[in-house]
Amino acid sequence: MTQYSVLGKPLPRVDGIPKATGEGKYAADLTLPGMLWGKLLRSTLAHARILNIDTSRAKRLPGVKAVITGKDLGGFTYGFIPTTRDESPLCPEKVRFMGEELAAVAAVDEDTAEEACSLIKVDYEPLPAVFDVEEALKPGAPQIHEHAPGNVSLHYKMNFGDVEGGFKQSEYVMEDRFQTPRVYHAMLEPHATLTRWESNGDLTVWASKQSPYFMYRIFAAAFNLPQHRVRIIQPYIGAGYGAKNDAFPLDFASVVLAKQTGKPVKIVYSQKEMLTSSRRRLPFTIDIKTGVKADGTIMAQDIRVIGDGGAYTLIGPITMYLAGAVKTLPYKIRNYRYDGIRAYTNLPACSAHRGHGLAHTHFAGEIQLDMIAEALGMDPLEIRLKNAVDPGYVTPNGLKVGSCGLKECLEKVRETTNWNNRHKRPVRQGNIARGIGVSATTYLSGMRIRGHSACAATIKVHEDGTVSLLTGATDAGQGSDTVLAMIAAEELGVGLDDINVSLLDTQTTPADPGTYSSRVTTCAGPAVKLAAQDARKQLAEVAAEMLGTDLQDVGFKDHRVFVKSNPRKEMAFKRLTRAVVGHGLGKVILGRGYYGLNVEVPDFETGMGNISPCYSFGAQVSEVKVDLETGKVDYYDTTAAHDCGFALNPMLVEGQVDGQVSAAQGQTMTESFIIDRTNGVTRNTDFRDYKMPRAADTPEIHQIHVETIDPEGPYGAKEASEAIMVSTYPSIVSAIYNATGVWIKDLIVTPEKVLKALKEQKGRSPLP
Amino acid sequence: MTQYSVLGKPLPRVDGIPKATGEGKYAADLTLPGMLWGKLLRSTLAHARILNIDTSRAKRLPGVKAVITGKDLGGFTYGFIPTTRDESPLCPEKVRFMGEELAAVAAVDEDTAEEACSLIKVDYEPLPAVFDVEEALKPGAPQIHEHAPGNVSLHYKMNFGDVEGGFKQSEYVMEDRFQTPRVYHAMLEPHATLTRWESNGDLTVWASKQSPYFMYRIFAAAFNLPQHRVRIIQPYIGAGYGAKNDAFPLDFASVVLAKQTGKPVKIVYSQKEMLTSSRRRLPFTIDIKTGVKADGTIMAQDIRVIGDGGAYTLIGPITMYLAGAVKTLPYKIRNYRYDGIRAYTNLPACSAHRGHGLAHTHFAGEIQLDMIAEALGMDPLEIRLKNAVDPGYVTPNGLKVGSCGLKECLEKVRETTNWNNRHKRPVRQGNIARGIGVSATTYLSGMRIRGHSACAATIKVHEDGTVSLLTGATDAGQGSDTVLAMIAAEELGVGLDDINVSLLDTQTTPADPGTYSSRVTTCAGPAVKLAAQDARKQLAEVAAEMLGTDLQDVGFKDHRVFVKSNPRKEMAFKRLTRAVVGHGLGKVILGRGYYGLNVEVPDFETGMGNISPCYSFGAQVSEVKVDLETGKVDYYDTTAAHDCGFALNPMLVEGQVDGQVSAAQGQTMTESFIIDRTNGVTRNTDFRDYKMPRAADTPEIHQIHVETIDPEGPYGAKEASEAIMVSTYPSIVSAIYNATGVWIKDLIVTPEKVLKALKEQKGRSPLP
Repeated sequence: MTQYSVLGKPLPRVDGIPKATGEGKYAADLTLPGMLWGKLLRSTLAHARILNIDTSRAKRLPGVKAVITGKDLGGFTYGFIPTTRDESPLCPEKVRFMGEELAAVAAVDEDTAEEACSLIKVDYEPLPAVFDVEEALKPGAPQIHEHAPGNVSLHYKMNFGDVEGGFKQSEYVMEDRFQTPRVYHAMLEPHATLTRWESNGDLTVWASKQSPYFMYRIFAAAFNLPQHRVRIIQPYIGAGYGAKNDAFPLDFASVVLAKQTGKPVKIVYSQKEMLTSSRRRLPFTIDIKTGVKADGTIMAQDIRVIGDGGAYTLIGPITMYLAGAVKTLPYKIRNYRYDGIRAYTNLPACSAHRGHGLAHTHFAGEIQLDMIAEALGMDPLEIRLKNAVDPGYVTPNGLKVGSCGLKECLEKVRETTNWNNRHKRPVRQGNIARGIGVSATTYLSGMRIRGHSACAATIKVHEDGTVSLLTGATDAGQGSDTVLAMIAAEELGVGLDDINVSLLDTQTTPADPGTYSSRVTTCAGPAVKLAAQDARKQLAEVAAEMLGTDLQDVGFKDHRVFVKSNPRKEMAFKRLTRAVVGHGLGKVILGRGYYGLNVEVPDFETGMGNISPCYSFGAQVSEVKVDLETGKVDYYDTTAAHDCGFALNPMLVEGQVDGQVSAAQGQTMTESFIIDRTNGVTRNTDFRDYKMPRAADTPEIHQIHVETIDPEGPYGAKEASEAIMVSTYPSIVSAIYNATGVWIKDLIVTPEKVLKALKEQKGRSPLP
Repeated sequence: MTQYSVLGKPLPRVDGIPKATGEGKYAADLTLPGMLWGKLLRSTLAHARILNIDTSRAKRLPGVKAVITGKDLGGFTYGFIPTTRDESPLCPEKVRFMGEELAAVAAVDEDTAEEACSLIKVDYEPLPAVFDVEEALKPGAPQIHEHAPGNVSLHYKMNFGDVEGGFKQSEYVMEDRFQTPRVYHAMLEPHATLTRWESNGDLTVWASKQSPYFMYRIFAAAFNLPQHRVRIIQPYIGAGYGAKNDAFPLDFASVVLAKQTGKPVKIVYSQKEMLTSSRRRLPFTIDIKTGVKADGTIMAQDIRVIGDGGAYTLIGPITMYLAGAVKTLPYKIRNYRYDGIRAYTNLPACSAHRGHGLAHTHFAGEIQLDMIAEALGMDPLEIRLKNAVDPGYVTPNGLKVGSCGLKECLEKVRETTNWNNRHKRPVRQGNIARGIGVSATTYLSGMRIRGHSACAATIKVHEDGTVSLLTGATDAGQGSDTVLAMIAAEELGVGLDDINVSLLDTQTTPADPGTYSSRVTTCAGPAVKLAAQDARKQLAEVAAEMLGTDLQDVGFKDHRVFVKSNPRKEMAFKRLTRAVVGHGLGKVILGRGYYGLNVEVPDFETGMGNISPCYSFGAQVSEVKVDLETGKVDYYDTTAAHDCGFALNPMLVEGQVDGQVSAAQGQTMTESFIIDRTNGVTRNTDFRDYKMPRAADTPEIHQIHVETIDPEGPYGAKEASEAIMVSTYPSIVSAIYNATGVWIKDLIVTPEKVLKALKEQKGRSPLP
C-alpha cells in the first residue's frame, strides 16, 4: 500500500513508553487527597436468603468511615438488555453464587477496610444450590431467580433454509457432542475504581473499563443523575478481553461510599477476588449435526447448545446470538438451525470473552468437519476450501461478506507449512508423536447493540502543526489509540508523533460505545478519518489561496502541503498551520467526524440481519508433539494466515495474533476453573493454580497477512486477530488427533484426558 | 426581552455553590502524590549585575530536591509582541527591580523550600537605579536595557484630522496635567501553579490564568515542545483583572523543577510576594490640551502621556495603544493627536488592569471637560450630551459605533439622581461638604491581538437531554461560564441546569484567547451560539420527521420541541434526545461553532482600525461628603447608567458593576503602592497597608440598565461593567470639586492632598 505514508507501517504504540516504563497510570495507581479505601464483603454460601446483615461491629472499628449493604442502592437492578435486568450491585435479599458481593466498607486504609468486612455478620438461610447446567435445567431443580422457573435465562432459536430437506439431500450425516471450558479472561489488571463527588454535583469516576459509556449510562440510571454530571475518565487499561464492559459491585459501592463519606473512595479487587467471583467465559455443551454430500459440500447443520451462564444474564443475549448467528460463516451453509439455551446455575456469572460466542460453536463445527473429511476420505483443508465462502457471499441469515481472503489463507497455510507432508514425514520418535491440524475461522468487525453504535471524533489542529485527537473509543490495550492516531496522521499528512490522543472522558470526548466485538478500528476509525478530513478541508481552503490553486488540487503528505497537479509548488504543513491558526489568520481548526455503522441490530427472535460492516477470515495450521506415555501435549508451532483486510499497523496485528494464540492455547490445554461441585467454591484462585501459558510455553508463531481491501472497513481494514482466537482451539485439537488418533471433544485437553483416550483407543494405532 | 426563556434572567452562577462553599478547587488547593513545593529567591537590589549565584548550601539542605537559576532556562526571553521580548523567567545576568526572581528551589515542603532560598548566595555588582519616570527619560539616566538607550520601551503616535486647525477654530483651549496611580489588581487568589511531566512526554500544568492559551504558546516556545504536548488545565480562578494573562517566573520554574526532580511541583506566591513584585497598573502622567467652541463643541484634542512601565514591557503595546486609540470615544473628537511613551524604570513591571489603557486618558479627559464646562458656564452633563456620539458614528481612527445608549445614560442619571438639584440643596453641614460629579464612559468589547482572535465551542448532547459545553473561554471570576451556558441553554430550549461547562484544558477544549478586554461574551458567546445551533439543527432533522413537519418549522423552547406553525404538536426535548442519541438512532450529536471577530488588528503605527466588534457606554453620577477639617472623603452614593447592550444575565452585570465601583473607589482614594525612592522597595506589601475599600466603605450603588440591542454582539449584548471602572475615577474627583472647589488632578485623593488643596485655595469659598 505504497500510497500511504503512515498507515500500513509497523509503528510503535503511542502509549508504549509509559506502559513499558511502568510510569503510565492505571486506575489502581491513582490516588487523591483524603482518599479512602473500599473493600467488599462476599458471600460464603452459593445460594442463600439473606436474613440479616449486622454491620454494627464493622462501623465501630476505628478508621472505618462507612459501611453499606444492598439496601443503600435502593433496589437498583441492571442487565445488558431491559428484559434481563436480574442483577443487583450488592445483593439485597439473596446470594446466588459463592463470593457474591453483599456489603462494602470505606476506611482509611485497605487493611482496615478488610478487617471491617470480617466484622460484618451475615445471617443466611441456606438454599439448595445447583452447580451443573444439566441439573439446573431438570424439573425440580432449585430455582435461582423468581422470574425464571426452570432456570432458563435465555432461549434463542434460529432456522434458515430447509434443514430437514438438507439432511435428506445429504449423503453423510454426523452427530457429535462437544464441550468448551469455563475460563477466565486473565487480564493482568484487576478491576479498579476511584470515585469522587465534585462540589458542583459532578460524579467523577476513574475506572478500568472497556466501555466507559456503558458505565455512564448505568450510573445515570442507578443514581438518578443527569448524564452531563456523570464523568467517567479512562486511565490506561491493563486489558479487558470482554471482562470490563459492565459496571461491577465495586463501581457502585465506590459511588455510594464516596457520597456517604464525602471523600474519594478507591476499590481494587485482588486477583483472588477476580478469580473467585468475577466474570468468566460461558462453558457450552454443543450438540452438532452436519450433513454433507459425498464431495464434502455441507448440506445442513443443526446445532443445539446449552450454556452455563452462572448466576446472572449480563451480556448473555449477545453471546447466545453470536454463537448461533455467526456460525453461518465461514462456510456456505444454506440450511441451518440453532437452538441455544443459556441456563442459570449457582456459579459466578459469565460474560463476553474474546472470540465471544464464536469460539464455542466454531470449535465444534471445525472438529466435526475434520471428522467428516476423514469419513469421506478428504483432506481436511480441501473440505474447507470446498465450502469456503467468497467475496460477495450472503449467508442465509443475511451476513454480507465484503472482502474475503479465506481461500487464499487456506492455500497459504498449505504452502508454507508441513501440511502437505503430514502423511509422509515420520510422525513418531520414541514416545513422542507429532501431529498437525488445520482450522478455518472468521470474526465480525464490530456490531450494533440496541442502536448504540455511532462514533464521533474531533481533531484540533495546533498552530505548530501538531494535533489533538479526541475520541470516545477505548484503548483497552489492543493498540487502538495508535491506529486512530495513525489514521489522523495519514489524512493530515503528518507523522504519528504529531498526534496526541486524549484519554476518554465522558464529559469532553465524543461518545463512543467502547471496545467490544473488535469494533474500534472499523467503527471509530472512520469517525477519526472523517474528522481529520474535515480539518484538512478547512486548512486546504487557505492553502489553495496560498498556493494559487483549487481546493481539490491541494494535497497533504509527509508534512508537506502541495499542489497535486504541480507538486513542486508546496510548503511545509507547519507553515500552513502557522498561517491559519491562532497568530496567523486567527482561525480555530476543529475537525469533526461521525460514523454510524451501516448494519442491522441483532434480531434476537430470528437471528437475521447483517450485524457487522465486515468479517475477517483466517486459516491456521498447528503442530503438536504428544508424549504418548504421559499424555502431555507440546504445542510447538503454528501458522496463522489472517485476512484482516488492510493491516493498518502490521506490528500491532502481529502482537494481537500472538496474544490470541497464547490465550487460546491456555484455554485449550491448561486453563480452566476447578469448581467444587459440592459447594460452588472455586479451587484455583491464583495464577499458580490457574495456569496460563508463559512465554516459554508459547509455540513458534508464523503469521501470514492475506491482504484484502474491504469495501466497508476504513482503508479496507477489518477486525484483526480475534478470529485467530477462534481457530486456535480446533487447530490444536485437530493436531492432537493427527498425532494420536484420538479426538478430545471436551476441552480442556489435559494429559489425563489424552492418556485416558489413548487407553480407550486400545490397540488402534495412533498413526492415522 | 420576552422572547427568551433563559437569557435576560438573573440566574445564579453555575459555579456558585462550589465557590460559595469553599469546595471549589483553585490551583493552590491542588495536590498530587509525591508533589514537591517550590519557592523563588528574589533580588535584594533593584538594579544590579549578577556576578555569581552559589546554590551549593541550598542544595545540601535535607529535603531540597532541586535548585535552579536563570541558566537552567537557556536564555529564553519573552514578551507580548516579538519586538518587545525583554524579560527572562529567572534573571540570568541582571536584576532590574527589587524582588525580581533569580532562582527557584523544589523541596519536600514549603518551609524547607523557603529556608533553601535563604541559603542561596548571590553576588551582585550594584548598578545605579532609577525609580522615577521623568528621571528615567533624562539624558544620562541609568540604562536599564541594552536595547533601549534613553529607557524608552515604546513610543506611539497617532494623528487624526487637523489638530492644529481644530485648535485654531476653537474659542476656548485648556491645557492641564493629570497623574494616575500605581495600583495593584488586588485579586484575592495569588499566582499558583502545579506542574507535572507525564510519562508520555506531555507537560500538564494547572495554573491560575486568564489566558491559558497564552501560556501554552509561551511554554511550547520556552521548552521547545510541540503544542499538542502542552496541557494547561484551568482550575477555578480567584480573579485576575488583567494580572493573570502572562506566564510568570513561578510557572517556568515549576516546569524546570518538575523536570529535574521527576515529581510534580507546586508554587504559590504569598500575598507579600504579589504585592512586592507582581504586575500592577501603569501610572501615567497625562498632558492634555482640548479646544472647544463657545457652545462646548470639542474641536481638537492633543494628549501626551508618559507611562512608567517598570522594568519590562509585557502587554505594554496594548496599554499604550488603547490609551490613545480609544480616547476618540465617547465624544465626537474629529481632530485628535496622541503621543504616548512607555518608559522603563527599576520598578516591578506593569501590565493590563481593568479599564486597561482607557482609565488613564479618560480620567484626564473627563476632568478637563468639567473644567471647560465651568469655564464656559455650561452644565457638565450638558457638555457631555452635546459631544456624545450616536449609533452609527465612526471615529476618525475608524472605531465603529453600533448601538449607543450614551445620551440615554446621561439623561437617566440626570433624572434619577440629585444632579439637577446640585446647586439648590444645602451642600454644607458643619465641616461636611457634599458634592456631586458626573462622568461619561465607554469601553471595548473584545479586541483582536495579532490575529489570535477566533473562538470555538463544541456542544455534546447527551441521551437524557443534558448537554456538555466545551469552550476554551476562561471564566476568571466574571461569570462567563454562566453566560455561555445560558446561551447554549437558550438555543437548545433547555435550562441552565442542563448545561455542564467543562473547565478549560488546552488538549481537549477548543482554542480561545482567554479573558481580556471584556471579550468573552462578545467573542466566545457567538461561538457557543453557533455550536448550539449546529447541534439543534442535527436534532431538528429527526424532530421534523417525528413531528411530521419541515426542518425550518421545528422550534425548541422550555424543554419542548414543537411545530412552530402548530405549537400543539410537540414533545419533550428529552424524548427527542432519547430517540436520536445513543440507544435511540445511535447518533452522536456534536455541535460545533467558530467565531472570528470581524474587526481589525491594532495598528501600532497609526492607531487606525476598528478594533472591537462593539463598544459599551455609560454615565455615572457620584456623590461624596468631604470633611473640610480632615480632608477625608466619604464616597457614599453613586448611580451608574450602563449601556451593555442586552444584559444576558442582569444579576451578573450588577455584580460586575458593583465590583468595578469598589475597585475604582480604592484606586481613586486609598490604594496606591508606596515606593521608597531611594532603593525601589515597596513599603505596603500586605492588605493592611495596601488599603482596599471594604464592604462598609462601598457607596450605595444604583444601577440603570440602558438596554440597546447591538448589531454585532450576541443577542445584542456588549461588554458589561468595565466601562464603569473608567467613569468612577473622574466622577468621584468631580464630586469632590463640587463639594470643595478644588481639583485633585493627581490621583490618589488622600486626605492630605485635599487639605493641602483647600489650604492653597485660601480664602476662596468652598462653595461653587
